Amino acid sequence: MGYEAVLVQLLMALGLALIVGKAFEELFARIRYPPILGDLVAGVLLGTVFNIFPKGEAVDAFAWFGVTLLLFYAGLETRYGEFMKSIRRAGLVTIGEALAAFGLGTLVGLAMGYSLVSSLFLGTILEATSVSLTVRTLMDLGKLRSLEGTAILAIAVLDDISSLLTIAVVTSFALLHQIEIINAIQIAALALGFWVGVVLLFHKVNNRIVKFSRKLRITEPTLTVLLGIFALLAVTAKDFRVSPLIAAYAIGLAFSDARGIQQAVDKIKSMAVVFSTMFFVNSAARIDFLTALKPEYAVFYALMIAAAFAGKLLGGGLTSFIVGYSKWSALRIAAGLFPRAEFCIIAAVAGQSLGVIGPEAYFSAILIVLITNFAAPPLLKLVFSHGPPSALRSWKLISLKRKGVG
Amino acid sequence: MGYEAVLVQLLMALGLALIVGKAFEELFARIRYPPILGDLVAGVLLGTVFNIFPKGEAVDAFAWFGVTLLLFYAGLETRYGEFMKSIRRAGLVTIGEALAAFGLGTLVGLAMGYSLVSSLFLGTILEATSVSLTVRTLMDLGKLRSLEGTAILAIAVLDDISSLLTIAVVTSFALLHQIEIINAIQIAALALGFWVGVVLLFHKVNNRIVKFSRKLRITEPTLTVLLGIFALLAVTAKDFRVSPLIAAYAIGLAFSDARGIQQAVDKIKSMAVVFSTMFFVNSAARIDFLTALKPEYAVFYALMIAAAFAGKLLGGGLTSFIVGYSKWSALRIAAGLFPRAEFCIIAAVAGQSLGVIGPEAYFSAILIVLITNFAAPPLLKLVFSHGPPSALRSWKLISLKRKGVG
Repeated sequence: MGYEAVLVQLLMALGLALIVGKAFEELFARIRYPPILGDLVAGVLLGTVFNIFPKGEAVDAFAWFGVTLLLFYAGLETRYGEFMKSIRRAGLVTIGEALAAFGLGTLVGLAMGYSLVSSLFLGTILEATSVSLTVRTLMDLGKLRSLEGTAILAIAVLDDISSLLTIAVVTSFALLHQIEIINAIQIAALALGFWVGVVLLFHKVNNRIVKFSRKLRITEPTLTVLLGIFALLAVTAKDFRVSPLIAAYAIGLAFSDARGIQQAVDKIKSMAVVFSTMFFVNSAARIDFLTALKPEYAVFYALMIAAAFAGKLLGGGLTSFIVGYSKWSALRIAAGLFPRAEFCIIAAVAGQSLGVIGPEAYFSAILIVLITNFAAPPLLKLVFSHGPPSALRSWKLISLKRKGVG
Repeated sequence: MGYEAVLVQLLMALGLALIVGKAFEELFARIRYPPILGDLVAGVLLGTVFNIFPKGEAVDAFAWFGVTLLLFYAGLETRYGEFMKSIRRAGLVTIGEALAAFGLGTLVGLAMGYSLVSSLFLGTILEATSVSLTVRTLMDLGKLRSLEGTAILAIAVLDDISSLLTIAVVTSFALLHQIEIINAIQIAALALGFWVGVVLLFHKVNNRIVKFSRKLRITEPTLTVLLGIFALLAVTAKDFRVSPLIAAYAIGLAFSDARGIQQAVDKIKSMAVVFSTMFFVNSAARIDFLTALKPEYAVFYALMIAAAFAGKLLGGGLTSFIVGYSKWSALRIAAGLFPRAEFCIIAAVAGQSLGVIGPEAYFSAILIVLITNFAAPPLLKLVFSHGPPSALRSWKLISLKRKGVG
């Protein structure tokens, strides 16, 4: 009867997420706060205060499946043409904000007396953007397809690739005490090649695949084919050091302008909305407040948190402004890059497993995830509902440069 | 990075089920066989022949979640009024077919020289009907809402309750060497009370709940509320010794005639179709053919398999005919009761854990699950596509008896 225990565990987690999580979503929606905060509050209540949220491999897997599906849906909702138009500018912003966040984190480490290797890992913790919470918030605000929304998604995707590269490079530095440039370039090329390859290849054949699926006699043919490709490519991605979440976004993007998939996309949307709730409730339920909040680390935590915001604000905001976004759009983009989640934790776990950073660095990662996730939705709502509409400050800068005039 | 390993495992299982499972479904659909056989063939190929289907707690949990969702959907698709009309007749058929299957299994045990307690467990293995495969097959045939479909669902639901009772009674017999009537009655009353209570209570308030959900500001409110209630009640069910699957059916049934839920039901249907594929592929992938097919057990296996069919055919068919179904309808109902799955295995595991039956009994349960699942869909298709349409032989018998004339 082992199956029943694990099934009950999964149903319990889902039921609590859907009833309690959504009740708090409703509450926050009514007091005009982003609903996603409701999931996090519900998670903290269920996990820490009442301690009734089930823990287990199946719950975690399902939660991650939900958020992977959310990234797939985010890809499907992106406009392919606009994404491709924004990617040049996004690449420049990514370099700016990743360097700033990484640099500030490293500086905090050095200032607190950590070694260079440890400090580089602290920088790595601050680098990656967790796009999932921003996606949900922008979805709730109806801004997912805005100029800034598209830019944030593009930057966050490139950001994850750059973060994986940083983790790989810093790890090899920790192991060998020197940076292996060739190894790093190989890893980056492989990951980027896979990601771009998936997008371009499936974008080329997306209409043919959908047309083929419509000839099948099985129930829900298009939905089945889309989800099947999504699942298998997300699995294949790991051989190329690409996170399943980032791969899911690539496949969604590749199919985003395929004809005749709206019904399937609607169904993927409802699955993503329902199952990703479990991810957000689950992640908040796992926070161990008692251990994390030891007073001796207060200054370190405060500096890391400040650096987490400052890195993205300065790096992301300034670079966005420089590449041509208006002041408000640059601010919106920077705010969209605040949230951290899975990569922040991955970097911390990698550093800890190498013995390079201690548990306080891991706790700082948890705190950053918590605080950036609580702060980002209201901040996003604030900057998206105020100021002038989405705008590029000028196309001139880039186009002048391209012509060699600037 | 533990999350990634388990996520990849889950995505791999889902991807293989959706691509390979559905490819075989398509193949079987084209040669006019029930598509569900495709899932089982794909499962055997992926699990046993190529050994690439991932095993793990998360995969099992997700598979069981899929089939629980399928039962929820089956409940939603049942017509409440018709179910209630058919339940009196279904109750009589359940007593007939459960006694016949249980009796034949016990006889096989005694004939093969097993002790009385062991033989009673063999009978218990044969008793329960697995309604999920029949539901999928009837769905594919478009006969889920037919007279026989409604009867099969009602009988199978009562059958599971009677099987749980039998497991409880036989277990107490094995432990105490006497049957505790009072304990058995308590268990049965509790389970039945819960099941009937859920159906009646939620049926009474179903429109109010749906109306309430429509006032919420969250995305997908009705779907969320339905799935939330489904999940939490399926969890609560275990305290009343009701399987989550049976509870899921009860909740579906209670909401089946609620107004304004069609869109949510459509989404639940697509989730159920997609995720239950994983259940059927997964269950077929788990079969250990090498161990199960030892020659010395051949006669025992053959007798158990024969009894598995004969018990339902004689008990289910004859009793159905007696309570008023036509000859063809009785045959269809009996065929719908052939498949065994979870309860068959649960009974075997329970007996084995008590030391009352050996591994060969467990293997016979696996064989019965396999063979009844392969045989039932074509048999169902055969009996549903031939013969006269659904019919009650006569209403007289029952109504005459009720008036005290017969």
